Amino acid sequence: MMVVMKESATLADVEAVIERVEMGGASAHVSRGELVTVIGVIGDREHVGSIELEGARTVVEVDGRRIGGPHFTTIAGPCTVESREVMLETARTVRDAGAGLLRGGAYKPRTSPYSFQGLGEAGLRLLQEAKDETGLPIVTELMDVRDLDAVLEVADVIQLGARNMQNYTLLTEVGRTGRPVLLKRGLSSTLDELLMSAEYVLKEGNEQVMLCERGIRTFETGYRFTLDLMAIPVLKELSHLPVVVDPSHAAGRRDLVLPMSLAAAAAGADGVMVETHPAPEEAICDGPQALRAEDFSDYMRRLEQAAALAGKELQPVA
Amino acid sequence: MMVVMKESATLADVEAVIERVEMGGASAHVSRGELVTVIGVIGDREHVGSIELEGARTVVEVDGRRIGGPHFTTIAGPCTVESREVMLETARTVRDAGAGLLRGGAYKPRTSPYSFQGLGEAGLRLLQEAKDETGLPIVTELMDVRDLDAVLEVADVIQLGARNMQNYTLLTEVGRTGRPVLLKRGLSSTLDELLMSAEYVLKEGNEQVMLCERGIRTFETGYRFTLDLMAIPVLKELSHLPVVVDPSHAAGRRDLVLPMSLAAAAAGADGVMVETHPAPEEAICDGPQALRAEDFSDYMRRLEQAAALAGKELQPVA
Amino acid sequence: MMVVMKESATLADVEAVIERVEMGGASAHVSRGELVTVIGVIGDREHVGSIELEGARTVVEVDGRRIGGPHFTTIAGPCTVESREVMLETARTVRDAGAGLLRGGAYKPRTSPYSFQGLGEAGLRLLQEAKDETGLPIVTELMDVRDLDAVLEVADVIQLGARNMQNYTLLTEVGRTGRPVLLKRGLSSTLDELLMSAEYVLKEGNEQVMLCERGIRTFETGYRFTLDLMAIPVLKELSHLPVVVDPSHAAGRRDLVLPMSLAAAAAGADGVMVETHPAPEEAICDGPQALRAEDFSDYMRRLEQAAALAGKELQPVA
Amino acid sequence: MMVVMKESATLADVEAVIERVEMGGASAHVSRGELVTVIGVIGDREHVGSIELEGARTVVEVDGRRIGGPHFTTIAGPCTVESREVMLETARTVRDAGAGLLRGGAYKPRTSPYSFQGLGEAGLRLLQEAKDETGLPIVTELMDVRDLDAVLEVADVIQLGARNMQNYTLLTEVGRTGRPVLLKRGLSSTLDELLMSAEYVLKEGNEQVMLCERGIRTFETGYRFTLDLMAIPVLKELSHLPVVVDPSHAAGRRDLVLPMSLAAAAAGADGVMVETHPAPEEAICDGPQALRAEDFSDYMRRLEQAAALAGKELQPVA
Repeated sequence: MMVVMKESATLADVEAVIERVEMGGASAHVSRGELVTVIGVIGDREHVGSIELEGARTVVEVDGRRIGGPHFTTIAGPCTVESREVMLETARTVRDAGAGLLRGGAYKPRTSPYSFQGLGEAGLRLLQEAKDETGLPIVTELMDVRDLDAVLEVADVIQLGARNMQNYTLLTEVGRTGRPVLLKRGLSSTLDELLMSAEYVLKEGNEQVMLCERGIRTFETGYRFTLDLMAIPVLKELSHLPVVVDPSHAAGRRDLVLPMSLAAAAAGADGVMVETHPAPEEAICDGPQALRAEDFSDYMRRLEQAAALAGKELQPVA
Repeated sequence: MMVVMKESATLADVEAVIERVEMGGASAHVSRGELVTVIGVIGDREHVGSIELEGARTVVEVDGRRIGGPHFTTIAGPCTVESREVMLETARTVRDAGAGLLRGGAYKPRTSPYSFQGLGEAGLRLLQEAKDETGLPIVTELMDVRDLDAVLEVADVIQLGARNMQNYTLLTEVGRTGRPVLLKRGLSSTLDELLMSAEYVLKEGNEQVMLCERGIRTFETGYRFTLDLMAIPVLKELSHLPVVVDPSHAAGRRDLVLPMSLAAAAAGADGVMVETHPAPEEAICDGPQALRAEDFSDYMRRLEQAAALAGKELQPVA
Repeated sequence: MMVVMKESATLADVEAVIERVEMGGASAHVSRGELVTVIGVIGDREHVGSIELEGARTVVEVDGRRIGGPHFTTIAGPCTVESREVMLETARTVRDAGAGLLRGGAYKPRTSPYSFQGLGEAGLRLLQEAKDETGLPIVTELMDVRDLDAVLEVADVIQLGARNMQNYTLLTEVGRTGRPVLLKRGLSSTLDELLMSAEYVLKEGNEQVMLCERGIRTFETGYRFTLDLMAIPVLKELSHLPVVVDPSHAAGRRDLVLPMSLAAAAAGADGVMVETHPAPEEAICDGPQALRAEDFSDYMRRLEQAAALAGKELQPVA
Repeated sequence: MMVVMKESATLADVEAVIERVEMGGASAHVSRGELVTVIGVIGDREHVGSIELEGARTVVEVDGRRIGGPHFTTIAGPCTVESREVMLETARTVRDAGAGLLRGGAYKPRTSPYSFQGLGEAGLRLLQEAKDETGLPIVTELMDVRDLDAVLEVADVIQLGARNMQNYTLLTEVGRTGRPVLLKRGLSSTLDELLMSAEYVLKEGNEQVMLCERGIRTFETGYRFTLDLMAIPVLKELSHLPVVVDPSHAAGRRDLVLPMSLAAAAAGADGVMVETHPAPEEAICDGPQALRAEDFSDYMRRLEQAAALAGKELQPVA
């Protein structure tokens, strides 16, 4: 385990951590860098795992919603913001079922330059409208550092997509804003690399980072990506940050979203991010993986039970 | 979806399936081969999934235990049979906690020829003793077709390991015995290949086949293998066979076995196969991934709750 | 095969291509989009491959050096620009051995935020000095769109790194400059995705694009990346762009650079990009993979023979 | 580097190796096991690589043909033995073009039990006939230990396929025969695992082992397998055994066989194994990857030039 101390940590803080580690039967190896102090905790994995470091778990707060710790959070919405009507209708579905945050992409990273690239600023305005009506905080993706100001006006959480996990420019700039960040794991990034990318944000003083497993690329062609659920307990061992799972993009198919969401919750995830749409057949983008609006509240109820298995509670709608 | 008809199926049986498929709003495409008749079901995935084919789900019966359908089964024991004392003690732990079957390897496939290769026939005798004492049916691996008779004397379920998933000689011979088979997915085998290997057994008239996901090889070096839990719902869509998950070998670490077992059960697996040992530190083989005997009954209780989430019940000890 | 017509193509141009395709025994399927016209060539692979489309192969010109067609080009230099002395000494080695272009990174994408991130603009100035002295054109990486103007002042070829292969902002902006681009394949990007990323540059009217294979991520841990040399003939079949191979980063070891360079040249690559350093043991970055300066001219001689096998010639130093 | 001493090695032999290692500037770490003595050579890779251990390189001799050392060998023939006419015609093509050995499968490992499984013993008899007529030694695959005697009557080299790389039963039995072995790397086996499997054969006293790279499974779907040519120099560093490359199965396409063969030879392979057929369109199995008989002698001439690049010579037809 590696403990990265805040820049504001005093020598006494560092010593307090060392003492706790040693009381737990492990030993501490301190590296003082120019910028940060890192304490490596060395010892038997099971002992190390049980050392309680004060405030060890980061709980991200977004407009009254808590992500991490004993909380289980659902982030839901359409893949892409496509029209006022669909956006508002989806927002109401999401709110009524008790989900915590609303997602929707205004800027879409697309493999082909000839595909629909998102509504851009017009999409951001629709997200603002949905937020005004439902009170749900907004999660939306930033792709270009030049769009940062526009995105900051609307986004309660800035999403950094899989393709941008190692876009260090973007990581650093988003770190500087202090705004909560949802950082998606790259298609073939190791967990170490994901944590190092998170470090680019943390290093700027922004500790509001959520890690997101969204499927990795393997030899298996039976599905779009292989959802790596073992990443949940392993990331939680290596880091204090909340871990969210996106089963929609990994599966690419609606019928796999429920079983994979239950599995993620049972394995201890702090939340899921899923897609829902009032008429998936007509969605501009990724319709086949969107949950049908009429099934969404059932989905939430099942999810609640799975989260309870891992000792987590969905937050009541205030 | 592909329906492979039994060799004993009559024309009327085939027509009955076709009628049911067409009533479900899908269309059927029949290929009559020399050996078997295969009915391809073509149509919208969601409709196809909801067509109930009579006896569609195979439920494997092993000495009164049922694997598949509404049942959730735990197969537990040491990685390798190492001594009379450890074997009997583990068998009692497994039985007392209510697990369904006892596992233990007498023949061990090892990467290096210089590693311990298992106790062989002496190991089989210890498995027999454990069975006599506890009444638990035995799951054990067969590696060499020349050991088939010896293994058949003890094994209630013959395990075919990941390295032998495409050992067609072994698949065919085991198919001929009619004995239930646990077929592990190869380290980098696709689901289609796993199903084709199962077909080698089924083709000999042996329908008692369980498929086992045990982790695949990917770029991630944070754990031994990447457990592919999306395989559970997808295998169940493509096939009528029960699906079991082995979280111990994928993780290689005890602390990941519980969360991954809960996730497997929540995703709809028909069972798990795990390792437990009275003194993992002294195990000859794979100790770090064995659950501690003293934790095993807690583990079973948690598992029961997760299986319930997916509508499955652990069988009461008769 | 897919032929993307220039935006300036007239109907007559499109018909000329169709005629040629049909004379070759294949058939053409034309899709006219808003932006471009794409002609799909359908038929037996071998016939399709032998249809000569006028100007089919792009030859990139950089300050008198030609990359593509019958030419074989070597791009060499230190991994990162680290000091005036090392930069100038390496530049002389590269020039004296007859290599075509000089590489060196001023901006370095690093997994960890705590690693050396490159000299930045000071590095660009050292590259300019090396170019002034040796006359070698410069290849250097751009990571942040805000550095574009500074990089354009020095770079004859703009390198886009593997991590930025799907940074669509960067691809588009670099496309607009018209400056030659070296586009590296992402660690786990398919060839189709690489070509789609190239399309982001081409679409802006910049046809000076070189594709670069630099190793992909696989399960094999024996080396850093697996160099995928089959990508050379396959990219050349799917596209008209030159293909360059970077064996240094894939191998991570000096002793593998020569055999992999010879293999790349024998397989028909249009060039290689390699690292060399006067004192690899003292290099700030990636020293173990840098060819020793004293071996570089031997390396070039061997490479020339391998390129000749595939019918390509190293350009004489003018 | 690891040196495994023969069982017949005396203490003086072991000391001679140690002395040579230490004279080379490296240090030796000796482990004496019950069965073999292994000497680990520790030191700077470049120094270690240049230590010349007497008889370090295994050269396999098959009926006057030498594989390994300064020799380059071509093994060619149809994928599967399908008829007397095709077999004999192909054998003549192979002999006339100067290839060293004739390949052909009588037993075929097939993913589906419903695919053609090879002619079996009738196929072996056709191989014998082809050998009688052309004098070419035969390479053919063994899948089932029960076919060993039949295969031994015809095979000069026993091929163990990718799916059987970890079939330890087969490895051990083939080791006992003393017959030369061509061991193919598994689809997702690491080089370490390949070497360990070779060790199963060597341990039985059979040192006539050739390693064969035939493509690994990766995320790339553009071709059947990714040919891993970096395996050539790395296997040669880790082991003294000859390394052969099979470009036909990796590519699955005729047009990639020549460039990949040239690349393999340029990278230092000791040989290639390729498929050729008089009428690929009519081949029962893998026709699209078979070289056309009429192109085969050109292919051999190009290959000779590439082998020369790496300092190897094709053997003259005696």
